[in-house]
Amino acid sequence: MAFGLFLGSIFISTDNYAIFVSVSSLIMVVGGTLASTFLGQEARYVMLALRGMLSIFGVHRMGRNVLNNDVGRIIRWGYVAQKSGLIALDAEAKKVEGDDFLSFGMEMLLTSYAGDEIRANLTSVADTAFERNMVPANILRGMGATAPAFGMIGTLVGLIIMLDNMGSDPKQLGPGLAVALNTTLYGVILARMIFIPAANKLTQRWQIMRFRHELILEGLSMLADRKNPRYIQDRMNSYLDPAIRFDIDKQMKEAGG
Amino acid sequence: MAFGLFLGSIFISTDNYAIFVSVSSLIMVVGGTLASTFLGQEARYVMLALRGMLSIFGVHRMGRNVLNNDVGRIIRWGYVAQKSGLIALDAEAKKVEGDDFLSFGMEMLLTSYAGDEIRANLTSVADTAFERNMVPANILRGMGATAPAFGMIGTLVGLIIMLDNMGSDPKQLGPGLAVALNTTLYGVILARMIFIPAANKLTQRWQIMRFRHELILEGLSMLADRKNPRYIQDRMNSYLDPAIRFDIDKQMKEAGG
Amino acid sequence: MAFGLFLGSIFISTDNYAIFVSVSSLIMVVGGTLASTFLGQEARYVMLALRGMLSIFGVHRMGRNVLNNDVGRIIRWGYVAQKSGLIALDAEAKKVEGDDFLSFGMEMLLTSYAGDEIRANLTSVADTAFERNMVPANILRGMGATAPAFGMIGTLVGLIIMLDNMGSDPKQLGPGLAVALNTTLYGVILARMIFIPAANKLTQRWQIMRFRHELILEGLSMLADRKNPRYIQDRMNSYLDPAIRFDIDKQMKEAGG
Amino acid sequence: MAFGLFLGSIFISTDNYAIFVSVSSLIMVVGGTLASTFLGQEARYVMLALRGMLSIFGVHRMGRNVLNNDVGRIIRWGYVAQKSGLIALDAEAKKVEGDDFLSFGMEMLLTSYAGDEIRANLTSVADTAFERNMVPANILRGMGATAPAFGMIGTLVGLIIMLDNMGSDPKQLGPGLAVALNTTLYGVILARMIFIPAANKLTQRWQIMRFRHELILEGLSMLADRKNPRYIQDRMNSYLDPAIRFDIDKQMKEAGG
Amino acid sequence: MAFGLFLGSIFISTDNYAIFVSVSSLIMVVGGTLASTFLGQEARYVMLALRGMLSIFGVHRMGRNVLNNDVGRIIRWGYVAQKSGLIALDAEAKKVEGDDFLSFGMEMLLTSYAGDEIRANLTSVADTAFERNMVPANILRGMGATAPAFGMIGTLVGLIIMLDNMGSDPKQLGPGLAVALNTTLYGVILARMIFIPAANKLTQRWQIMRFRHELILEGLSMLADRKNPRYIQDRMNSYLDPAIRFDIDKQMKEAGG
Repeated sequence: MAFGLFLGSIFISTDNYAIFVSVSSLIMVVGGTLASTFLGQEARYVMLALRGMLSIFGVHRMGRNVLNNDVGRIIRWGYVAQKSGLIALDAEAKKVEGDDFLSFGMEMLLTSYAGDEIRANLTSVADTAFERNMVPANILRGMGATAPAFGMIGTLVGLIIMLDNMGSDPKQLGPGLAVALNTTLYGVILARMIFIPAANKLTQRWQIMRFRHELILEGLSMLADRKNPRYIQDRMNSYLDPAIRFDIDKQMKEAGG
Repeated sequence: MAFGLFLGSIFISTDNYAIFVSVSSLIMVVGGTLASTFLGQEARYVMLALRGMLSIFGVHRMGRNVLNNDVGRIIRWGYVAQKSGLIALDAEAKKVEGDDFLSFGMEMLLTSYAGDEIRANLTSVADTAFERNMVPANILRGMGATAPAFGMIGTLVGLIIMLDNMGSDPKQLGPGLAVALNTTLYGVILARMIFIPAANKLTQRWQIMRFRHELILEGLSMLADRKNPRYIQDRMNSYLDPAIRFDIDKQMKEAGG
Repeated sequence: MAFGLFLGSIFISTDNYAIFVSVSSLIMVVGGTLASTFLGQEARYVMLALRGMLSIFGVHRMGRNVLNNDVGRIIRWGYVAQKSGLIALDAEAKKVEGDDFLSFGMEMLLTSYAGDEIRANLTSVADTAFERNMVPANILRGMGATAPAFGMIGTLVGLIIMLDNMGSDPKQLGPGLAVALNTTLYGVILARMIFIPAANKLTQRWQIMRFRHELILEGLSMLADRKNPRYIQDRMNSYLDPAIRFDIDKQMKEAGG
Repeated sequence: MAFGLFLGSIFISTDNYAIFVSVSSLIMVVGGTLASTFLGQEARYVMLALRGMLSIFGVHRMGRNVLNNDVGRIIRWGYVAQKSGLIALDAEAKKVEGDDFLSFGMEMLLTSYAGDEIRANLTSVADTAFERNMVPANILRGMGATAPAFGMIGTLVGLIIMLDNMGSDPKQLGPGLAVALNTTLYGVILARMIFIPAANKLTQRWQIMRFRHELILEGLSMLADRKNPRYIQDRMNSYLDPAIRFDIDKQMKEAGG
Repeated sequence: MAFGLFLGSIFISTDNYAIFVSVSSLIMVVGGTLASTFLGQEARYVMLALRGMLSIFGVHRMGRNVLNNDVGRIIRWGYVAQKSGLIALDAEAKKVEGDDFLSFGMEMLLTSYAGDEIRANLTSVADTAFERNMVPANILRGMGATAPAFGMIGTLVGLIIMLDNMGSDPKQLGPGLAVALNTTLYGVILARMIFIPAANKLTQRWQIMRFRHELILEGLSMLADRKNPRYIQDRMNSYLDPAIRFDIDKQMKEAGG
């Protein structure tokens, strides 16, 4: 799409694509950025960041439906708990075992933790998970600042070599400068096309995840406090976009149907 | 107005307007900015941001009158509730059904929620609405930083092509450079004339909206706590510019007239 | 003073002052900055910001004496209230009617609001006043960032025109570049000499105002809680520079004299 | 030391030191920076900032010993208060009269303020003192950003004059540019060698001072609450570097010896 | 690794490595950066920062195992305390004497401090330790901003000398500029390869240390409140990555084996 337009507009302007290909420029920018990153960060986190870069090509799995489903499920649990007690949620807990956060919360709910304790523990889980997940995003953001710096370093190296060689022939200045500027170009493109978008995507993903965690911890702590389902629905809906608010009456028909 | 002056001062300086028109430059800047933005953000939010850009031409609907009216309405409700109980506000609730925030709050008020619960729920609504609304503003702000970067990328691409072609004819340097600089020009103008003002306008609009939400949630929670109307007026007025503070006595005449 | 030195050092360096005068450059920078600002902000606030710019020439009315007087007045009121009850402050309230903040607080004090309620309401007044007042300061700060950008835009426009016209006569490059650079010069000077100092001055003024508001709300809420005057003095003094702390014993002599 | 190395490396590179001396450049940078600062800030604060600049040559009086002494003194007072009541600290209060903060706190302690009240008042003193002290540091930091801008302004002025004069003799470009660049050089050196280090030094000094204030207010409020000295020691030590923690037993020997 | 690639790509591009070696450039950048840093910071902290620079070559000792061990130990202590009272932890306290934080906490635990008091004191220890440890990291970050500025200063100095000497021989411009640009190159490389990575590494290390401190203070304060070990495990696990959560039942077998 837009990316094609961008490349297309380059192709239109010149026939000599080869001048934009420079292996040593690429090595200098990528190598320098990686070297600087590995020197300043744990290797394990850098690996996570590099893997996170692939995320910009992926489709994001968690949309508004997921949030709506979570809310619906918790309200339904509220009705079950109202009728048959929290113990009746045991079967539900088994269904969500694949979901770390939800099953950790359900376990506490079934062990009769108070609402405040569930809220405190799940807040810790949500906060530390968010902090851990933001480390690779922040590393990518750092790489987005480092890459143009190494682009500039490469251009300076190229300029110094060129100026030193130039001797008495100013006609060489053009092509030499063209090669030197390639490194700056690579640095800025890498930053703006890969590192910064990937950092943004990861940040956005984990912010939505954290929002979901807050929604669930709010819901589970209300279940533990045995709030009535309508109260739970109003509280949960207060977090949602009016357009996707949950309607207990429709849900009742399904549940009672 | 000022925008005309700006264009006028360009027209004065040259007759050759064509040198400022470069389709490939425009494609490179706009395409690159969009590509980078779509890579880093959910498509749905980018679309909202692009639609939000139109807002810089729109007139802002919510002025100081709206705030003053909201305050007046809530104080009037205070008198109604004092005389005939909260249940008497049922008719009023129907009148505000078009307003998501107010009708959500009224519903809770009529369901006998306590002031604290109304405050907690409406605070969630106001906070999450603000966060959701700021996403497009932040995307536009990001585009305001991305556009000049792609302007620079385009200029680098233009420079490299030009320097490579230049060969032995330095006289070509002038016009070639002129074309290359166009991309930088486009990037900076797009950022300063479109993306950043649009981001500012959206930010300002949603901050005022949030302020209105705080005003209303404060008022409704006082209604739920059955505060007396003069107390409500003093509390509400404490949020308003002294010049538009609400005067209960004038209001009384209207209400009692 | 220093401003004269700055201009003087320019006058020393050249006789040809005319090269620094360029109406189209000025129009481009000022027009562009205004256009971008009006697009992104409510016109009403921009007008306030432009009026606020004049403040850099004004003398600041609120010095340390004002704060000291406020503290003294509140302590004196403490003695009056201790002897004859809060009702005795009625006459004092009339004297401060010109001062929105103080008279709003006094009114609540005389209506028997509790200390906590006075604190809550006056905190709202102080916070919202500060936020409202900072809007023009922030607009000016934004203009301080926008002006150099339009300076750069103007220089790019000038460069492109010049490079395009240059044709085969490199001797023209000098004067053409001189004119183009004027726009950058104007942008940076406008930012550093007008917009940023004005933003700083407004920020500082409203921060001092807010500090005064905090001082007064602290004092009035202690009066409402019927604290003894020595307690009030210690509390108030804890906000003041040791050099201007208020001494109750000197004050007593005046009051009792 | 390092400063000498820096100057030395310049001296090595050239014999013609005169080219680095330009009175009009210095006037332009210093004058412009001062003009911009005086326009944006109260003159009284700018004077404090300029006086604060001298601090970068001074030796900092408050080291770790001072903190350790303060802690020791408060623990000793704890023993005195345990044996003979707070009134026995009267003599100690006289000894610290030169120290505004400590004597303000001791006075409250001897007037039988509660621990919470002492903490609240001393926190106000510490916070407002810190805010007041940071004003000159922030002005210096602002000057560190303004000086390079005026360096750039000066260079632009120089460039415009030079380009305009250049006429048909490109050989003049070299020396003219050398003079113009001096202003940028002055701006950056002033910022990096004077304004920013001075701002850092002042910031650091007042942060340490604030830390000491927190230590003392914590100690005095524990004295007011009649905590036992070992408890006070553990609390105070929790603020100190393990290497300089205070050992009550050694202290006891001295005190009891 | 990546660092080698970076150097390799330089070696490929030129044979004349000598042009990148300039003692006076190095002295100017390093000397200027050190001078500016020593002027603005306490010498003692700068020394710590320089020593901290070596950390980028070191392997980080504290991984996820350490955190897991800490959690396991605290849960085991919970069982011991449940069976035999807190006094039974006396032997454990001796084992951790090398660890300042843990032994300070154990001492308070054995002196029968309440959970809240332990939490307050250990929070002070963790916060002040973190602040102290961040000082060198922030100095390094400041050096990362100062080094490129001195690189630019050096280049300006070199340019001025060169332009002044150039006289009538433009052929000298090339090599002279090459030498001048070396200083910029050194400044950027020092910043990106040494100062900024070292600052990041130190920041990361102390953030992990602080996280460990929070984990331990949470655990010890629960021990002081005599919480049951399963409750402690759930609370502690809420801080950990699900992948390394601690399982009390496995632990029981070991403990009971």
